[in-house]
Amino acid sequence: MLDFQATIGPAHILKPAYGSDLLKELGDFVRAKGINLAWLSGVGAVSQATIRYYDQPKQEWIDLVLDRRLEVAGMLGNVSLLNGEPIVHVHITLCDEEGHCFGGHLGNDTLVFNMEILLTTLTGPAVTRKMDPQTGLTLWY
Amino acid sequence: MLDFQATIGPAHILKPAYGSDLLKELGDFVRAKGINLAWLSGVGAVSQATIRYYDQPKQEWIDLVLDRRLEVAGMLGNVSLLNGEPIVHVHITLCDEEGHCFGGHLGNDTLVFNMEILLTTLTGPAVTRKMDPQTGLTLWY
Amino acid sequence: MLDFQATIGPAHILKPAYGSDLLKELGDFVRAKGINLAWLSGVGAVSQATIRYYDQPKQEWIDLVLDRRLEVAGMLGNVSLLNGEPIVHVHITLCDEEGHCFGGHLGNDTLVFNMEILLTTLTGPAVTRKMDPQTGLTLWY
Repeated sequence: MLDFQATIGPAHILKPAYGSDLLKELGDFVRAKGINLAWLSGVGAVSQATIRYYDQPKQEWIDLVLDRRLEVAGMLGNVSLLNGEPIVHVHITLCDEEGHCFGGHLGNDTLVFNMEILLTTLTGPAVTRKMDPQTGLTLWY
Repeated sequence: MLDFQATIGPAHILKPAYGSDLLKELGDFVRAKGINLAWLSGVGAVSQATIRYYDQPKQEWIDLVLDRRLEVAGMLGNVSLLNGEPIVHVHITLCDEEGHCFGGHLGNDTLVFNMEILLTTLTGPAVTRKMDPQTGLTLWY
Repeated sequence: MLDFQATIGPAHILKPAYGSDLLKELGDFVRAKGINLAWLSGVGAVSQATIRYYDQPKQEWIDLVLDRRLEVAGMLGNVSLLNGEPIVHVHITLCDEEGHCFGGHLGNDTLVFNMEILLTTLTGPAVTRKMDPQTGLTLWY
Protein backbone atom coordinates (compact mmCIF):
# COMPACT_ATOMS: atom_id res chain seq x y z
CA MET A 1 0.00 0.00 0.00
CA LEU A 2 1.42 3.32 -1.08
CA ASP A 3 1.00 5.76 1.86
CA PHE A 4 1.58 9.51 1.77
CA GLN A 5 1.03 11.14 5.17
CA ALA A 6 -0.44 14.63 4.95
CA THR A 7 -1.66 17.41 7.18
CA ILE A 8 -5.17 18.69 6.58
CA GLY A 9 -4.96 22.37 5.70
CA PRO A 10 -7.50 25.07 5.05
CA ALA A 11 -10.64 24.17 3.16
CA HIS A 12 -12.47 25.93 0.36
CA ILE A 13 -16.24 25.85 0.15
CA LEU A 14 -16.89 26.26 -3.56
CA LYS A 15 -19.86 27.02 -5.75
CA PRO A 16 -19.01 27.01 -9.46
CA ALA A 17 -21.12 29.34 -11.58
CA TYR A 18 -24.43 28.25 -13.07
CA GLY A 19 -23.82 26.81 -16.53
CA SER A 20 -20.08 26.41 -16.08
CA ASP A 21 -18.12 23.26 -16.90
CA LEU A 22 -17.68 21.51 -13.54
CA LEU A 23 -14.37 19.79 -14.22
CA LYS A 24 -12.86 22.79 -15.99
CA GLU A 25 -13.86 25.11 -13.13
CA LEU A 26 -12.20 22.88 -10.58
CA GLY A 27 -9.03 22.61 -12.67
CA ASP A 28 -8.88 26.36 -13.22
CA PHE A 29 -9.40 26.96 -9.51
CA VAL A 30 -6.61 24.73 -8.26
CA ARG A 31 -4.18 26.01 -10.89
CA ALA A 32 -5.01 29.65 -10.02
CA LYS A 33 -4.57 28.98 -6.30
CA GLY A 34 -1.49 26.77 -6.67
CA ILE A 35 -3.20 23.89 -4.87
CA ASN A 36 -1.20 20.74 -5.61
CA LEU A 37 -2.75 18.35 -3.13
CA ALA A 38 -6.37 18.26 -2.00
CA TRP A 39 -9.47 16.15 -1.47
CA LEU A 40 -12.88 17.01 -2.93
CA SER A 41 -16.43 16.18 -1.98
CA GLY A 42 -19.63 17.62 -3.40
CA VAL A 43 -23.36 17.45 -4.07
CA GLY A 44 -25.77 19.32 -6.31
CA ALA A 45 -27.28 19.04 -9.75
CA VAL A 46 -26.14 19.32 -13.35
CA SER A 47 -27.97 20.10 -16.59
CA GLN A 48 -25.94 17.57 -18.59
CA ALA A 49 -23.05 15.26 -17.84
CA THR A 50 -20.27 13.20 -19.31
CA ILE A 51 -19.22 10.17 -17.34
CA ARG A 52 -16.40 7.89 -18.36
CA TYR A 53 -15.85 4.17 -17.90
CA TYR A 54 -12.40 2.73 -18.35
CA ASP A 55 -12.28 -0.51 -20.28
CA GLN A 56 -9.53 -2.15 -18.27
CA PRO A 57 -8.49 -4.93 -20.70
CA LYS A 58 -8.57 -2.64 -23.76
CA GLN A 59 -7.09 0.29 -21.84
CA GLU A 60 -9.61 2.59 -23.50
CA TRP A 61 -12.06 5.15 -22.14
CA ILE A 62 -15.74 4.89 -23.01
CA ASP A 63 -17.57 8.20 -22.75
CA LEU A 64 -21.23 8.28 -21.86
CA VAL A 65 -22.92 11.61 -22.55
CA LEU A 66 -26.07 12.15 -20.52
CA ASP A 67 -28.00 15.00 -22.08
CA ARG A 68 -30.32 15.13 -19.10
CA ARG A 69 -30.85 17.14 -15.98
CA LEU A 70 -29.59 15.08 -13.07
CA GLU A 71 -29.10 15.30 -9.34
CA VAL A 72 -25.55 14.76 -8.13
CA ALA A 73 -25.92 12.25 -5.30
CA GLY A 74 -22.22 12.62 -4.65
CA MET A 75 -18.89 13.49 -6.11
CA LEU A 76 -15.53 12.59 -4.64
CA GLY A 77 -12.06 13.19 -5.92
CA ASN A 78 -8.65 14.65 -5.43
CA VAL A 79 -5.96 16.99 -6.68
CA SER A 80 -2.42 15.76 -7.28
CA LEU A 81 0.36 16.51 -9.76
CA LEU A 82 0.80 15.42 -13.36
CA ASN A 83 3.77 16.79 -15.30
CA GLY A 84 4.30 19.39 -12.58
CA GLU A 85 0.76 20.79 -12.78
CA PRO A 86 -2.18 20.07 -10.48
CA ILE A 87 -4.75 17.75 -11.99
CA VAL A 88 -8.27 17.14 -10.70
CA HIS A 89 -9.59 13.56 -10.64
CA VAL A 90 -13.27 13.25 -9.79
CA HIS A 91 -15.83 10.45 -9.78
CA ILE A 92 -19.52 11.23 -9.64
CA THR A 93 -22.89 9.60 -8.98
CA LEU A 94 -25.88 11.09 -10.81
CA CYS A 95 -29.61 10.39 -10.42
CA ASP A 96 -32.57 10.88 -12.69
CA GLU A 97 -36.21 11.69 -11.95
CA GLU A 98 -36.91 8.08 -11.04
CA GLY A 99 -33.95 8.01 -8.66
CA HIS A 100 -31.91 5.72 -10.92
CA CYS A 101 -28.18 6.30 -10.60
CA PHE A 102 -25.45 6.67 -13.20
CA GLY A 103 -21.84 7.10 -12.33
CA GLY A 104 -18.24 7.04 -13.33
CA HIS A 105 -15.22 9.21 -13.91
CA LEU A 106 -16.27 12.85 -14.40
CA GLY A 107 -15.66 14.12 -17.93
CA ASN A 108 -15.73 17.51 -19.56
CA ASP A 109 -18.94 19.24 -20.59
CA THR A 110 -20.69 18.43 -17.34
CA LEU A 111 -22.62 21.63 -16.78
CA VAL A 112 -23.38 23.02 -13.33
CA PHE A 113 -26.97 23.71 -12.33
CA ASN A 114 -25.89 24.05 -8.72
CA MET A 115 -22.90 22.43 -7.04
CA GLU A 116 -21.74 22.71 -3.43
CA ILE A 117 -18.19 21.46 -2.99
CA LEU A 118 -15.73 21.11 -0.15
CA LEU A 119 -12.11 21.16 -1.30
CA THR A 120 -9.79 20.31 1.59
CA THR A 121 -6.17 21.22 0.97
CA LEU A 122 -3.53 18.78 2.13
CA THR A 123 0.10 19.50 2.98
CA GLY A 124 2.65 16.75 2.65
CA PRO A 125 5.00 15.09 0.21
CA ALA A 126 4.28 15.71 -3.48
CA VAL A 127 1.76 13.19 -4.77
CA THR A 128 2.51 12.77 -8.44
CA ARG A 129 1.03 10.79 -11.30
CA LYS A 130 2.89 9.07 -14.08
CA MET A 131 1.87 6.66 -16.80
CA ASP A 132 1.48 3.16 -15.40
CA PRO A 133 1.84 0.59 -18.19
CA GLN A 134 0.00 -2.12 -16.24
CA THR A 135 -3.24 -0.12 -16.23
CA GLY A 136 -2.64 2.42 -19.01
CA LEU A 137 -3.55 5.21 -16.58
CA THR A 138 -1.57 8.04 -14.99
CA LEU A 139 -1.39 6.84 -11.40
CA TRP A 140 0.29 7.83 -8.14
CA TYR A 141 3.67 6.23 -7.57
CA MET B 1 -16.43 30.35 -8.75
CA LEU B 2 -17.69 31.42 -5.36
CA ASP B 3 -14.99 30.54 -2.80
CA PHE B 4 -15.32 30.69 0.99
CA GLN B 5 -12.08 29.76 2.76
CA ALA B 6 -12.63 27.93 6.03
CA THR B 7 -10.69 26.24 8.79
CA ILE B 8 -11.55 22.66 9.60
CA GLY B 9 -12.69 22.49 13.20
CA PRO B 10 -13.66 19.69 15.54
CA ALA B 11 -15.63 16.79 14.12
CA HIS B 12 -18.64 14.93 15.47
CA ILE B 13 -19.03 11.22 14.92
CA LEU B 14 -22.78 10.73 14.99
CA LYS B 15 -25.17 7.83 15.23
CA PRO B 16 -28.82 8.88 15.09
CA ALA B 17 -31.20 6.63 16.99
CA TYR B 18 -32.77 3.57 15.41
CA GLY B 19 -36.08 4.53 13.83
CA SER B 20 -35.42 8.27 13.91
CA ASP B 21 -35.92 10.63 10.96
CA LEU B 22 -32.42 11.06 9.52
CA LEU B 23 -32.79 14.59 8.16
CA LYS B 24 -34.70 15.85 11.21
CA GLU B 25 -32.08 14.40 13.57
CA LEU B 26 -29.29 16.18 11.74
CA GLY B 27 -31.22 19.46 11.71
CA ASP B 28 -32.03 19.22 15.41
CA PHE B 29 -28.39 18.41 16.19
CA VAL B 30 -26.86 21.38 14.40
CA ARG B 31 -29.45 23.77 15.79
CA ALA B 32 -28.88 22.47 19.34
CA LYS B 33 -25.12 22.78 18.99
CA GLY B 34 -25.18 26.10 17.15
CA ILE B 35 -23.25 24.66 14.21
CA ASN B 36 -23.66 27.04 11.28
CA LEU B 37 -21.08 25.64 8.89
CA ALA B 38 -20.13 22.00 8.44
CA TRP B 39 -19.60 19.15 6.02
CA LEU B 40 -21.28 15.75 6.37
CA SER B 41 -20.44 12.28 5.16
CA GLY B 42 -22.12 9.01 6.12
CA VAL B 43 -22.96 5.39 5.46
CA GLY B 44 -25.45 2.91 6.86
CA ALA B 45 -28.91 1.63 6.18
CA VAL B 46 -32.48 2.92 6.36
CA SER B 47 -35.83 1.20 6.68
CA GLN B 48 -37.55 3.62 4.29
CA ALA B 49 -36.49 6.72 2.40
CA THR B 50 -37.66 9.80 0.59
CA ILE B 51 -35.42 11.08 -2.17
CA ARG B 52 -36.14 14.19 -4.13
CA TYR B 53 -35.38 15.14 -7.74
CA TYR B 54 -35.54 18.77 -8.77
CA ASP B 55 -37.23 19.36 -12.11
CA GLN B 56 -34.96 22.17 -13.27
CA PRO B 57 -37.13 23.65 -16.06
CA LYS B 58 -40.36 23.51 -14.02
CA GLN B 59 -38.58 24.51 -10.79
CA GLU B 60 -40.52 21.84 -8.94
CA TRP B 61 -39.48 19.04 -6.60
CA ILE B 62 -40.51 15.46 -7.37
CA ASP B 63 -40.59 13.26 -4.28
CA LEU B 64 -39.91 9.57 -4.57
CA VAL B 65 -40.92 7.54 -1.53
CA LEU B 66 -39.08 4.24 -1.23
CA ASP B 67 -40.94 2.09 1.27
CA ARG B 68 -38.09 -0.41 1.31
CA ARG B 69 -35.16 -1.34 3.45
CA LEU B 70 -32.05 -0.03 1.76
CA GLU B 71 -28.32 0.24 2.28
CA VAL B 72 -26.91 3.76 2.25
CA ALA B 73 -23.92 3.52 -0.08
CA GLY B 74 -23.11 7.11 0.75
CA MET B 75 -24.47 10.39 1.93
CA LEU B 76 -22.77 13.73 1.54
CA GLY B 77 -23.93 17.18 2.47
CA ASN B 78 -23.40 20.36 4.37
CA VAL B 79 -24.67 22.83 6.93
CA SER B 80 -25.01 26.51 6.08
CA LEU B 81 -27.40 29.32 6.99
CA LEU B 82 -30.88 30.10 5.71
CA ASN B 83 -32.78 32.97 7.30
CA GLY B 84 -30.23 33.05 10.12
CA GLU B 85 -30.72 29.40 11.07
CA PRO B 86 -28.51 26.43 10.17
CA ILE B 87 -29.96 24.23 7.46
CA VAL B 88 -28.80 20.75 6.51
CA HIS B 89 -28.53 19.86 2.83
CA VAL B 90 -27.84 16.20 2.12
CA HIS B 91 -27.76 13.97 -0.95
CA ILE B 92 -27.85 10.22 -0.61
CA THR B 93 -27.22 7.02 -2.59
CA LEU B 94 -29.32 4.00 -1.58
CA CYS B 95 -29.07 0.37 -2.71
CA ASP B 96 -31.50 -2.51 -2.72
CA GLU B 97 -30.98 -6.25 -2.30
CA GLU B 98 -29.85 -6.58 -5.92
CA GLY B 99 -27.33 -3.76 -5.47
CA HIS B 100 -29.30 -1.35 -7.66
CA CYS B 101 -28.86 2.26 -6.62
CA PHE B 102 -31.35 5.07 -6.09
CA GLY B 103 -30.34 8.55 -5.16
CA GLY B 104 -31.15 12.20 -4.87
CA HIS B 105 -31.75 14.96 -2.38
CA LEU B 106 -32.56 13.52 1.05
CA GLY B 107 -36.12 14.19 2.14
CA ASN B 108 -38.03 13.82 5.40
CA ASP B 109 -39.33 10.48 6.64
CA THR B 110 -36.11 8.66 5.85
CA LEU B 111 -35.89 6.35 8.84
CA VAL B 112 -32.59 5.24 10.35
CA PHE B 113 -31.83 1.54 10.66
CA ASN B 114 -28.20 2.38 11.38
CA MET B 115 -26.26 5.42 10.25
CA GLU B 116 -22.64 6.34 10.90
CA ILE B 117 -21.93 9.97 10.12
CA LEU B 118 -18.95 12.30 10.26
CA LEU B 119 -19.92 15.94 10.68
CA THR B 120 -16.87 18.17 10.31
CA THR B 121 -17.39 21.68 11.60
CA LEU B 122 -15.91 24.53 9.58
CA THR B 123 -14.95 27.99 10.78
CA GLY B 124 -14.94 30.85 8.35
CA PRO B 125 -17.14 33.52 6.83
CA ALA B 126 -20.88 32.93 7.10
CA VAL B 127 -22.11 30.82 4.20
CA THR B 128 -25.70 31.82 3.63
CA ARG B 129 -28.47 30.73 1.31
CA LYS B 130 -31.02 32.92 -0.38
CA MET B 131 -33.60 32.35 -3.06
CA ASP B 132 -31.96 32.29 -6.48
CA PRO B 133 -34.51 33.12 -9.18
CA GLN B 134 -32.47 31.48 -11.95
CA THR B 135 -32.77 28.05 -10.37
CA GLY B 136 -35.68 28.51 -7.96
CA LEU B 137 -33.52 27.14 -5.14
CA THR B 138 -32.06 28.68 -2.00
CA LEU B 139 -28.39 28.81 -2.92
CA TRP B 140 -25.13 30.16 -1.51
CA TYR B 141 -24.27 33.65 -2.64
CA MET C 1 -28.23 10.99 18.74
CA LEU C 2 -24.99 9.43 19.88
CA ASP C 3 -22.25 12.08 19.52
CA PHE C 4 -18.51 11.51 19.88
CA GLN C 5 -16.51 14.73 19.47
CA ALA C 6 -13.15 14.21 17.78
CA THR C 7 -10.18 16.18 16.55
CA ILE C 8 -9.15 15.71 12.95
CA GLY C 9 -5.60 14.40 12.89
CA PRO C 10 -3.12 13.62 10.17
CA ALA C 11 -4.39 12.08 6.96
CA HIS C 12 -3.07 9.23 4.85
CA ILE C 13 -3.35 9.31 1.08
CA LEU C 14 -3.44 5.65 0.15
CA LYS C 15 -3.09 3.60 -2.99
CA PRO C 16 -3.49 -0.13 -2.41
CA ALA C 17 -1.54 -2.34 -4.79
CA TYR C 18 -2.97 -3.44 -8.12
CA GLY C 19 -4.78 -6.75 -7.67
CA SER C 20 -4.94 -6.54 -3.88
CA ASP C 21 -8.08 -7.12 -1.81
CA LEU C 22 -9.38 -3.63 -1.05
CA LEU C 23 -11.00 -4.33 2.32
CA LYS C 24 -8.16 -6.55 3.53
CA GLU C 25 -5.57 -3.92 2.57
CA LEU C 26 -7.40 -1.27 4.55
CA GLY C 27 -7.76 -3.54 7.57
CA ASP C 28 -4.10 -4.53 7.48
CA PHE C 29 -3.08 -0.88 7.17
CA VAL C 30 -5.02 0.40 10.17
CA ARG C 31 -3.93 -2.52 12.33
CA ALA C 32 -0.28 -2.03 11.34
CA LYS C 33 -0.47 1.70 12.08
CA GLY C 34 -2.55 1.35 15.24
CA ILE C 35 -5.27 3.60 13.84
CA ASN C 36 -8.39 3.08 15.96
CA LEU C 37 -10.55 5.94 14.72
CA ALA C 38 -10.67 7.34 11.19
CA TRP C 39 -12.85 8.33 8.27
CA LEU C 40 -12.33 7.03 4.73
CA SER C 41 -13.22 8.34 1.30
CA GLY C 42 -12.13 7.00 -2.07
CA VAL C 43 -12.55 6.64 -5.81
CA GLY C 44 -11.09 4.39 -8.46
CA ALA C 45 -11.84 1.13 -10.19
CA VAL C 46 -11.92 -2.56 -9.33
CA SER C 47 -11.65 -5.73 -11.41
CA GLN C 48 -14.29 -7.56 -9.38
CA ALA C 49 -16.34 -6.76 -6.32
CA THR C 50 -18.43 -8.19 -3.53
CA ILE C 51 -21.16 -5.95 -2.17
CA ARG C 52 -23.39 -6.90 0.69
CA TYR C 53 -27.01 -6.06 1.49
CA TYR C 54 -28.32 -6.58 4.97
CA ASP C 55 -31.77 -8.14 5.14
CA GLN C 56 -33.01 -6.15 8.12
CA PRO C 57 -36.00 -8.31 9.14
CA LYS C 58 -34.12 -11.60 8.73
CA GLN C 59 -30.90 -10.14 10.17
CA GLU C 60 -28.94 -11.86 7.41
CA TRP C 61 -26.36 -10.64 4.92
CA ILE C 62 -26.91 -11.21 1.21
CA ASP C 63 -23.68 -11.21 -0.77
CA LEU C 64 -23.66 -10.08 -4.38
CA VAL C 65 -20.53 -11.03 -6.29
CA LEU C 66 -19.90 -8.84 -9.32
CA ASP C 67 -17.35 -10.57 -11.52
CA ARG C 68 -16.97 -7.47 -13.64
CA ARG C 69 -14.63 -4.58 -14.07
CA LEU C 70 -16.27 -1.54 -12.50
CA GLU C 71 -15.58 2.10 -11.76
CA VAL C 72 -15.81 3.09 -8.12
CA ALA C 73 -17.97 6.21 -8.15
CA GLY C 74 -17.35 6.55 -4.44
CA MET C 75 -16.51 4.74 -1.28
CA LEU C 76 -17.06 6.06 2.23
CA GLY C 77 -16.45 4.46 5.56
CA ASN C 78 -14.76 4.52 8.90
CA VAL C 79 -12.47 2.82 11.36
CA SER C 80 -13.59 2.11 14.92
CA LEU C 81 -13.01 -0.63 17.48
CA LEU C 82 -14.51 -4.11 17.75
CA ASN C 83 -13.24 -6.42 20.48
CA GLY C 84 -10.31 -4.06 21.05
CA GLU C 85 -9.12 -4.17 17.43
CA PRO C 86 -9.69 -1.58 14.70
CA ILE C 87 -12.29 -2.61 12.16
CA VAL C 88 -12.92 -1.01 8.78
CA HIS C 89 -16.52 -0.43 7.69
CA VAL C 90 -16.92 0.72 4.09
CA HIS C 91 -19.81 1.24 1.69
CA ILE C 92 -19.20 1.56 -2.01
CA THR C 93 -20.89 2.66 -5.23
CA LEU C 94 -19.77 0.89 -8.42
CA CYS C 95 -20.61 1.63 -12.06
CA ASP C 96 -20.53 -0.45 -15.21
CA GLU C 97 -19.80 0.49 -18.82
CA GLU C 98 -23.33 1.85 -19.26
CA GLY C 99 -22.98 3.98 -16.14
CA HIS C 100 -25.41 1.86 -14.12
CA CYS C 101 -24.62 1.82 -10.42
CA PHE C 102 -24.43 -0.99 -7.90
CA GLY C 103 -23.72 -0.46 -4.27
CA GLY C 104 -23.74 -1.69 -0.73
CA HIS C 105 -21.50 -2.75 2.09
CA LEU C 106 -18.01 -3.57 0.81
CA GLY C 107 -17.14 -7.26 1.11
CA ASN C 108 -13.97 -9.27 0.75
CA ASP C 109 -12.53 -10.25 -2.63
CA THR C 110 -13.03 -6.81 -4.11
CA LEU C 111 -9.87 -6.49 -6.18
CA VAL C 112 -8.13 -3.18 -6.79
CA PHE C 113 -7.51 -2.00 -10.34
CA ASN C 114 -6.68 1.45 -9.02
CA MET C 115 -7.93 3.07 -5.85
CA GLU C 116 -7.17 6.54 -4.46
CA ILE C 117 -8.18 6.85 -0.83
CA LEU C 118 -8.08 9.52 1.84
CA LEU C 119 -7.98 8.11 5.36
CA THR C 120 -8.36 10.90 7.92
CA THR C 121 -7.37 9.90 11.43
CA LEU C 122 -9.52 11.16 14.28
CA THR C 123 -8.54 11.64 17.91
CA GLY C 124 -11.17 11.44 20.57
CA PRO C 125 -12.99 9.05 22.85
CA ALA C 126 -12.86 5.39 21.85
CA VAL C 127 -15.64 4.59 19.40
CA THR C 128 -16.45 0.95 19.93
CA ARG C 129 -18.82 -1.55 18.36
CA LYS C 130 -20.78 -4.24 20.11
CA MET C 131 -23.55 -6.57 19.06
CA ASP C 132 -26.87 -4.74 18.96
CA PRO C 133 -29.74 -7.23 19.29
CA GLN C 134 -32.27 -4.84 17.75
CA THR C 135 -30.45 -4.83 14.40
CA GLY C 136 -28.24 -7.92 14.66
CA LEU C 137 -25.22 -5.77 13.76
CA THR C 138 -22.13 -4.68 15.68
CA LEU C 139 -22.88 -1.00 16.17
CA TRP C 140 -21.44 1.99 18.02
CA TYR C 141 -22.77 2.48 21.50
